[in-house]
Amino acid sequence: MSTRYERGLARLAEIDRIQIERILTSLEDIAPDFGRYLVEFAFGDIYTRPGLDLKSREIATVAALTALGALPQLKAHIHGALEVGCRREEIVEVIMQMAVYAGFPAALNAFTAAKEVFAERSKRGTVSCRLNAAIPASDSVSPT
Amino acid sequence: MSTRYERGLARLAEIDRIQIERILTSLEDIAPDFGRYLVEFAFGDIYTRPGLDLKSREIATVAALTALGALPQLKAHIHGALEVGCRREEIVEVIMQMAVYAGFPAALNAFTAAKEVFAERSKRGTVSCRLNAAIPASDSVSPT
Amino acid sequence: MSTRYERGLARLAEIDRIQIERILTSLEDIAPDFGRYLVEFAFGDIYTRPGLDLKSREIATVAALTALGALPQLKAHIHGALEVGCRREEIVEVIMQMAVYAGFPAALNAFTAAKEVFAERSKRGTVSCRLNAAIPASDSVSPT
Amino acid sequence: MSTRYERGLARLAEIDRIQIERILTSLEDIAPDFGRYLVEFAFGDIYTRPGLDLKSREIATVAALTALGALPQLKAHIHGALEVGCRREEIVEVIMQMAVYAGFPAALNAFTAAKEVFAERSKRGTVSCRLNAAIPASDSVSPT
Amino acid sequence: MSTRYERGLARLAEIDRIQIERILTSLEDIAPDFGRYLVEFAFGDIYTRPGLDLKSREIATVAALTALGALPQLKAHIHGALEVGCRREEIVEVIMQMAVYAGFPAALNAFTAAKEVFAERSKRGTVSCRLNAAIPASDSVSPT
Amino acid sequence: MSTRYERGLARLAEIDRIQIERILTSLEDIAPDFGRYLVEFAFGDIYTRPGLDLKSREIATVAALTALGALPQLKAHIHGALEVGCRREEIVEVIMQMAVYAGFPAALNAFTAAKEVFAERSKRGTVSCRLNAAIPASDSVSPT
Repeated sequence: MSTRYERGLARLAEIDRIQIERILTSLEDIAPDFGRYLVEFAFGDIYTRPGLDLKSREIATVAALTALGALPQLKAHIHGALEVGCRREEIVEVIMQMAVYAGFPAALNAFTAAKEVFAERSKRGTVSCRLNAAIPASDSVSPT
Repeated sequence: MSTRYERGLARLAEIDRIQIERILTSLEDIAPDFGRYLVEFAFGDIYTRPGLDLKSREIATVAALTALGALPQLKAHIHGALEVGCRREEIVEVIMQMAVYAGFPAALNAFTAAKEVFAERSKRGTVSCRLNAAIPASDSVSPT
Repeated sequence: MSTRYERGLARLAEIDRIQIERILTSLEDIAPDFGRYLVEFAFGDIYTRPGLDLKSREIATVAALTALGALPQLKAHIHGALEVGCRREEIVEVIMQMAVYAGFPAALNAFTAAKEVFAERSKRGTVSCRLNAAIPASDSVSPT
Repeated sequence: MSTRYERGLARLAEIDRIQIERILTSLEDIAPDFGRYLVEFAFGDIYTRPGLDLKSREIATVAALTALGALPQLKAHIHGALEVGCRREEIVEVIMQMAVYAGFPAALNAFTAAKEVFAERSKRGTVSCRLNAAIPASDSVSPT
Repeated sequence: MSTRYERGLARLAEIDRIQIERILTSLEDIAPDFGRYLVEFAFGDIYTRPGLDLKSREIATVAALTALGALPQLKAHIHGALEVGCRREEIVEVIMQMAVYAGFPAALNAFTAAKEVFAERSKRGTVSCRLNAAIPASDSVSPT
Repeated sequence: MSTRYERGLARLAEIDRIQIERILTSLEDIAPDFGRYLVEFAFGDIYTRPGLDLKSREIATVAALTALGALPQLKAHIHGALEVGCRREEIVEVIMQMAVYAGFPAALNAFTAAKEVFAERSKRGTVSCRLNAAIPASDSVSPT
């Protein structure tokens, strides 16, 4: 039984169930343990730590992923940031500010990613992904 | 007369006067205009925008500079983050979280930088740099 | 009224109107101010400075974007480099040289981008984008 | 006559003929000399050196390309690693380990690339690319 | 009691006790939990996995740290690679090969780091760090 | 006898003898072949190609090394750029422009490097390194 895994999944349910299930599913047939580490270490160990609120954690992550140009993960965390209470405007400001530290191309590519996320969310309605969190997560994705 | 420059300097006085004056002084004999752009664009245009509070801006910057490994600038902004109200613990959490996105070496090198900043501040007392902001900034550093 | 914006747009008209209008249009509904900063700071402040000719500026930019792997922006600036007088051969040489500094993958990915630009330009004829510069730019894109 | 080129092509035939011919063909009309340097320097000079076995060389390359996010080249070298005797499991382990050094996004993007390579190879059967090496390589691709 | 931590420390004792104790000690007064995650996740979870031998793991790590320019960590892992059975020549070959993927500067800076490690080891004699592993590690460094 | 090596050394004598000899000497006891590849491939193959003048090549290199943060190599190539006819002002402009593409920290760190080079050259007089090129280079550094 994996307490860290459960703690990670619970934290993820607060952030964005849809995104993480996509990632875990895609890892299932190539590196299922890696999906488990992602849940356990990133979300069970780090994101559950006290000392920094969840919204600030997502702001830090959106900033870093913009600077690093990790666009698929940036899109997942823009969803996540919105779920934990960031306004679109705040995300736009974080990305814009990255032009100062990582250059204009990094910011421009992140804006393209953000537009896709905003459009996807507008299309499916403004219903939060967290509403789905009523369905227990541990059924569909479980560690090996 | 440069309104953007003045607005930038005023914003910088809220963040950390000592750090920016060091940078502007070091640029004076090689690229003084670049110091001006830094004040005008980064601090006059971006950091004065509404839509994201100053503390969140510094969290985003500490995250990005950790991920990019830009250590001299990271040290300046750890000072800045503390000046605008971040606790040391929050900075430690942001750096730690970057291990997930940019790898453990990026976080380890940032912790080395943070230790130096914390030690420097403990040595000179916990007096905030902003106390010095009573002395007008525009006297010592001015655009050409 | 924004002198820096106008100066930036004028400079951009010398480089490549089509590319920048695409970028500004794509930013309009997410971060229009960022489009303005791009014109004002990058093109109004930096690209209009004396001390380095425009062709050398584009060579520096093609080199950096190749090294950084910023492919959408690289494509825009290969267009730009050709518009300000670089020959295709010069662009190929800059990209090739980057294998020494950023590795062969960076150069290979940049060659893929360059091939797309060269093909696009051959298809639409060798007419320079600057010919379109007769139509005033300020009508379609203007700062808020 | 180019001994380094021939030595490079021979080494490449041991690794993966299909991948390198794709690359050389794509360079033919834009930078054929660059294809020659790639064969001569990377494969004729470096990959033929004693002191490190070919399998370890491919492990090093898969690690670096994962860390750098150079996905098209990573895919080519996952093919190559499998051709020189790496098991899929070993490639998965190398990618997973990169999460520690370059962050989880770098590893996740590399897993997406690895899945595509594994699927492509399963579809065309498990026949090694090296079987094709019976057909002399020097006919189709030759240095200028 | 932390089994992952103990497993990680045991693995580290096979690699290089001296290096990791330096890192854990430096983290003690700023982020002791981060030292624990490093031992638990990197060495307890990842480096103890079957499917890739320890020597290949160190080759992958030396390659990645060279490509990323993470020099303090590269030096620690050159020590580690030598401890788990890599010859100096193999490390030199890995670094050299990185010129192809990350450029000559990355390889040159890594050679500077490797020279320092080789010199340090020659000065203190060729005695392996692992000899010290007889002294139990858990006394001096323990998780909170 | 190595024609590519000789061609490379001759090209290097036009750029900056002092810098390259430092690099070759530092490689002698760890990876002498790597020094040879650097001369043969980077300077014998690439820098001797027609299609781009030497001054533009150095501008491209200064841009890329600024963007990549490869400071030791940047310093060597600022020397080189000055030797082949770039004015200090042009180098300052290239570095400044990189703030747009790689962020302000990259430019700031490059300015620190440039200041050191300018100071070193002022101290030893403005005598060009190329004057030393009268002393044949092949005596002190030769391929194995």
